[in-house]
Amino acid sequence: MTIQTPHRSGGRAARRAARAAPLADHLRPVRAGMSGGTFNPLSPAAMERIHHAALDALEQIGLADAPPSGIAYMTAAGAILGDDGRLRFPRALIEDTIARANRSVTLHARDPKHDLELSGTRVHYGTAGAAVHLVDVDGRTYRECGVQDLHDAAHIADQLDNLHFVQRPMVCRDIPDNLEMDLNSIYACCAGTTKHVGVSFTEPSFVPHGLELLHMIAGGEDKWRERPFVSNTNCFVVPPMKFATESCLVMEALIEGGMPILLLSAGQAGATAPAPIAGAIVQAVAECLAGLVYVNAVKPGHPAIFGTWPFVSDLRTGAMSGGSGEQALLTAGCAQMHRYYDLPGGAAAGIADAKLPDMQAGWEQAMSNVMAGMSGLNMVYEAAGMHASLLGFCLESLILGDDLIGQALRCVRGIEVTEDSVSLEVIRATCIGGPGHYLGSDQTLGLMQTEYIYPTLADRTSPKEWAELGRPDLLARATARKDDILAQRASARFDAQTDRMIRERFNIHLPA
Amino acid sequence: MTIQTPHRSGGRAARRAARAAPLADHLRPVRAGMSGGTFNPLSPAAMERIHHAALDALEQIGLADAPPSGIAYMTAAGAILGDDGRLRFPRALIEDTIARANRSVTLHARDPKHDLELSGTRVHYGTAGAAVHLVDVDGRTYRECGVQDLHDAAHIADQLDNLHFVQRPMVCRDIPDNLEMDLNSIYACCAGTTKHVGVSFTEPSFVPHGLELLHMIAGGEDKWRERPFVSNTNCFVVPPMKFATESCLVMEALIEGGMPILLLSAGQAGATAPAPIAGAIVQAVAECLAGLVYVNAVKPGHPAIFGTWPFVSDLRTGAMSGGSGEQALLTAGCAQMHRYYDLPGGAAAGIADAKLPDMQAGWEQAMSNVMAGMSGLNMVYEAAGMHASLLGFCLESLILGDDLIGQALRCVRGIEVTEDSVSLEVIRATCIGGPGHYLGSDQTLGLMQTEYIYPTLADRTSPKEWAELGRPDLLARATARKDDILAQRASARFDAQTDRMIRERFNIHLPA
Repeated sequence: MTIQTPHRSGGRAARRAARAAPLADHLRPVRAGMSGGTFNPLSPAAMERIHHAALDALEQIGLADAPPSGIAYMTAAGAILGDDGRLRFPRALIEDTIARANRSVTLHARDPKHDLELSGTRVHYGTAGAAVHLVDVDGRTYRECGVQDLHDAAHIADQLDNLHFVQRPMVCRDIPDNLEMDLNSIYACCAGTTKHVGVSFTEPSFVPHGLELLHMIAGGEDKWRERPFVSNTNCFVVPPMKFATESCLVMEALIEGGMPILLLSAGQAGATAPAPIAGAIVQAVAECLAGLVYVNAVKPGHPAIFGTWPFVSDLRTGAMSGGSGEQALLTAGCAQMHRYYDLPGGAAAGIADAKLPDMQAGWEQAMSNVMAGMSGLNMVYEAAGMHASLLGFCLESLILGDDLIGQALRCVRGIEVTEDSVSLEVIRATCIGGPGHYLGSDQTLGLMQTEYIYPTLADRTSPKEWAELGRPDLLARATARKDDILAQRASARFDAQTDRMIRERFNIHLPA
Repeated sequence: MTIQTPHRSGGRAARRAARAAPLADHLRPVRAGMSGGTFNPLSPAAMERIHHAALDALEQIGLADAPPSGIAYMTAAGAILGDDGRLRFPRALIEDTIARANRSVTLHARDPKHDLELSGTRVHYGTAGAAVHLVDVDGRTYRECGVQDLHDAAHIADQLDNLHFVQRPMVCRDIPDNLEMDLNSIYACCAGTTKHVGVSFTEPSFVPHGLELLHMIAGGEDKWRERPFVSNTNCFVVPPMKFATESCLVMEALIEGGMPILLLSAGQAGATAPAPIAGAIVQAVAECLAGLVYVNAVKPGHPAIFGTWPFVSDLRTGAMSGGSGEQALLTAGCAQMHRYYDLPGGAAAGIADAKLPDMQAGWEQAMSNVMAGMSGLNMVYEAAGMHASLLGFCLESLILGDDLIGQALRCVRGIEVTEDSVSLEVIRATCIGGPGHYLGSDQTLGLMQTEYIYPTLADRTSPKEWAELGRPDLLARATARKDDILAQRASARFDAQTDRMIRERFNIHLPA
């Protein structure tokens, strides 16, 4: 990337006016799809070692519990069913699958300006999860979350520049019927945002209903298939090394229905995955490679995201610790394996163990988010709002997460080194016969908006200014912004006719 | 590093007992001097480009305002004084100086177990700065700080495992006489901690008094010179490209007195340094290379730390923004240049713009600290406690910073990939005829303490446990720990006879 020093002609006033206008998208200091890759926790030899251990695991140990249809698909592709019921994968099959798999996946959005191109080290941040609580910041309490909360989260994320997609972060605990819950989750998310949405299905039999709803939102099956704007978060394995039989059937049906698949392996190091970070990566990579064979056996080239999502246990208690340094390393190590295979991938970062959006939450969310981005992870899931190791979702934290991720994206963008940016001539002109400082120089003013990112809510005042402003509280400001956003009806809401059609066909819980 | 799976003999009870005992230092999951280097924001070509721009700046632009003694030292070494009063450095002089400079520096501590070995990518975190306010968390206020606050900070940092040194973080605003302030700063820090201490001097004439005090603390000049446990933070330049005349004289006197020198160049991108990150690095590198020539011209091989500390401006206001992503990149890029030269170096990270230890403070401190460590910075200065972009220091934040830096150190340690850690045999034994999970496996239990780090104050309870515990507040817990530590007299305090001698000779403000 080359930074242009502004031309000297035109005058300062003209430049000031130009700076007051909104920046063209390509000039913004950060944006979706910036390329990472400066952080490499694994050496080339370490990646080779992990790859070969994964191949050994697939060839020698294999995976149990594939459904009969999956066994048929995968044995036809070259997998071998053992007498012990485990499906084993010869390394040639894995290597061929990797060679033939998609090198890029486009995740469409209802608004095409939010389309995501997953390839190389392009980085995107978004929500995800299955939290069962909403965190009430004012009352410092956790309460069960419902469909309105889910819609609110999607609506807020829609307004935040640095959230690039909205995978369902919360479960609608107020809808006891699982089919209704799945359908209402789709509705609540899609009515909240025109960004790409991720959902999941409880049972294979729910898939046709979900697709019918999506066809209605899209304006027809053809329109849906042309630009599928929802992907499926598919926990296709129960680690260690077992297929999740029902989820596999969901996956087969959704591949048929044209929905991109996130092949999600969510082992927990020390519980359902080996305790060493390297071992947890090996198992997750092995499981996702099996998933890749599966998807490509059902439909060659179907869009799939390599979803190595191993989590970390606090080994003293066995509880999850998504906010740990170990988690940040685990996710970044997985991202490096995605690059090793040159496959579009995703993993989890940005999870706080902290119960509230406090200082602990800040450091936990920041470390893993910045490391995930700098390692070049295509899809950084659970990047904002997530507390209590995935059990609680917080709307204020989601809003603050936008600022946090903005800084992480700035770090992903990295340091441009060009003839202009090394600044030798600027240093010379400043020091010899110049003003002796860089304030107000053309170079400084020219970079003010394109090189530097400014937070929305984070405070940069001096102690004096801060006192004069009444010592504003960060969380109170986040709550005020939440209230502002939610006072408006989500612009992603469906047109009246579509909405009526949907509500006639399905029991939609969200008020019209 | 190889991870040993525990032997199967000996029984689980014996292993449990062993785990209850404190870990031997070499088994602790994190410690001072772990090696970083996995984060590389600059490509090899970018580092070359920066290096050559710095050489050009030194040869063509040079530095103004060297004192006559410095001009004499440096021209004798090969620098050229121009008619414009600027001292210019031929590239051969710079290259020779780099080739001959120390590749490692030992920073001694009063307690040798805290000695720091600065070389390669070994990482150490500590305090630093010149804050003028203490942040009162309870009252949400800033007040002027004094000598008792400085001593308290040193005393607390002494007790925190992940703070490896204590450079004076606050100015004694309650001591108007500058000589007394400098001497009491030394006293307050050294009486608070047996870790390595950093101080500074206002005027060259104060140096003999400071050295006299240090000789008394050490038990004689010979003991001081054998193991100098205090280094000098020397702002030897006024960026851009001017020597700080008085500070240079301080430096000359301290080199004579045997004190290690931190060659500190603290430009501010967009104000006293070029606005592009790359340009700010070029200028800082050029200035520190000039400083390296200076030190080695005074005394070849004198211990010096390459202190490229460029800061970042918020270009909208010109105010400093130490908590920005740009700052994190700037510091990490500087660390890479230290490695490029294979010179012991230091820079600033962990600064919050946030006024209080809130979520913003957490993300600001975490991003730059983890990036500095992973880039292999030898000395991460200002790593804890620092708010309002260096204007305020907070004791509660210092305490929480210990947990934050613990996680950063875990990330610095990285991912070990060995035959054991890839876990193929453990996966096999678990999946085929095994329990189907890794809980309680020998490998898991064996790694519980050596592979995973556990926070001291950060909360990892479930929402249910957290509610049962009365929804503990993070800052209240930090305040409680602060009160606990400060209720004890600092164990670093001097013996009664030494203390009496010091107090007879100097006006010590801290109560005995």
